Amino acid sequence: MMNFTTFAKENKQFIEHELIAFVERLESPSILKESMLYSLQAGGKRVRPLLLFATLEAFGKPKELGMATACALEMIHTYSLIHDDLPCMDDDDLRRGKPTNHKVFGEAIATLAGDALLTMAFEVIARYSHSDVTPEIRLRIISELANAAGPEGMVAGQVADMQGEGQSLSVVDLEYIHRRKTGRLLEFAVLAGAVLAGANEEQVDKLLVFAANLGLAFQIRDDILDVEGTEAEIGKPVGSDIGNGKSTYTELLSIEGAKIALYETAEKARNAIDDLELNTVYLHALCDLVVNRNN
Amino acid sequence: MMNFTTFAKENKQFIEHELIAFVERLESPSILKESMLYSLQAGGKRVRPLLLFATLEAFGKPKELGMATACALEMIHTYSLIHDDLPCMDDDDLRRGKPTNHKVFGEAIATLAGDALLTMAFEVIARYSHSDVTPEIRLRIISELANAAGPEGMVAGQVADMQGEGQSLSVVDLEYIHRRKTGRLLEFAVLAGAVLAGANEEQVDKLLVFAANLGLAFQIRDDILDVEGTEAEIGKPVGSDIGNGKSTYTELLSIEGAKIALYETAEKARNAIDDLELNTVYLHALCDLVVNRNN
Repeated sequence: MMNFTTFAKENKQFIEHELIAFVERLESPSILKESMLYSLQAGGKRVRPLLLFATLEAFGKPKELGMATACALEMIHTYSLIHDDLPCMDDDDLRRGKPTNHKVFGEAIATLAGDALLTMAFEVIARYSHSDVTPEIRLRIISELANAAGPEGMVAGQVADMQGEGQSLSVVDLEYIHRRKTGRLLEFAVLAGAVLAGANEEQVDKLLVFAANLGLAFQIRDDILDVEGTEAEIGKPVGSDIGNGKSTYTELLSIEGAKIALYETAEKARNAIDDLELNTVYLHALCDLVVNRNN
Repeated sequence: MMNFTTFAKENKQFIEHELIAFVERLESPSILKESMLYSLQAGGKRVRPLLLFATLEAFGKPKELGMATACALEMIHTYSLIHDDLPCMDDDDLRRGKPTNHKVFGEAIATLAGDALLTMAFEVIARYSHSDVTPEIRLRIISELANAAGPEGMVAGQVADMQGEGQSLSVVDLEYIHRRKTGRLLEFAVLAGAVLAGANEEQVDKLLVFAANLGLAFQIRDDILDVEGTEAEIGKPVGSDIGNGKSTYTELLSIEGAKIALYETAEKARNAIDDLELNTVYLHALCDLVVNRNN
């Protein structure tokens, strides 16, 4: 088994290559492809595809089984970033240290590039999944992804996030938002890996507890970085969430309280998968990555 | 066989009831559901679902077989209208005589309601298709719908439409735009009906020629209405396309030329299905409806 750094690097290259290839093959207006590629290539840690591949690996399954789903997942994550940055939403000028999509291509093309990535994601799973992935499993994956990303999932979280701006929210409100806005896609990554690997119900349940807590830890770390990070590290101005009138864990719990919550949540994630008879080395490494990341 | 008016009325009620039920069942923030319902309930002729049901009927198949797909199709059509009306796109204040979604709910919720409808559409097909629709057929339908609506289809048409604003386009350019922007979803409606009914290749080919010409006729009629309609009929200011700097068939061909093109195109549509051994009464009636509509 290769070490985690090599695993992460290889899988990152693999998914980025596939993502670009899917878009380059399109017969679409060139400005649309450029806009889609701009955001797909803007970097990032590719946490969601890595979670999917790490889950497959826990069952000893090859990454090829999850390639189409991982691409679809990253397309949907990318669309959500493009739309979230729009002037009518969070109105952000910078993302990962680069101008946001609409700053480069204008709002109309940015909106359409997001729409295109979201739509295409479902075709990718339906049409380009590995031949070992049965039609039944493809449909299950499509259902789960649409549910995680749609009006009961990510979109619900984004609506609640917008509505909560400028209001003083409780920790419960904040959890409602984040479990949907970022949590559901992270959970989907693990669920998809498990379903593709043929996991049993008990394994799926424990992996989902892992993923739910990982998602929460991810968001708490985000809020800590918004206070303690540097602009060079996080690729956007420090304090921009608080500046946008958003409630954060650091504001509600204090910095120290948020750090304690982060470690406790990460511990819950780790404990959930400890007694699974699976090779969870990479899942543990991803948990460490989320807790310790500086961007 | 009931007459077309009764068929259209019954099927319209059927699909509208199902569309509302899908959204009302959602566990989502109420403002999001209201925004989705507002546009889903804004009326319209439901041409796409009717085309799907009429195609099923041509093969003697019940509408229940196409219910989920018809709902998904109308959700995607509705999302496209919401996003097209946004200030960064066509910036329209009225749609079917009512304020556009963003005028009522604001741009952020309108954008998210569109995203939600688009995402949910794929879950509806994957999860709620009639039990007689096999997993293989559901996947084919999902692929075709995503392709028709995505970066090689409707979104490509919308991009080309935006880029063509204020430019003098040729009839070829205009066809490129409309074959994608409105044509692909209309074609999908017929294709989906045929696939769900188990059509053979020759039947599919002829039905697609019908649908392609019907789509073109639809757009030519739209351009004629933009000149000759009344605001009360078309639900938005007369001449708004030309005012937006859009090229139109009436501008390129003159009103009389556009009318000739409309009748010729509709004739091509009718001829394509004339020698099929199918009951095409409703398909012919829909063709007449498109050619003669006043809104």
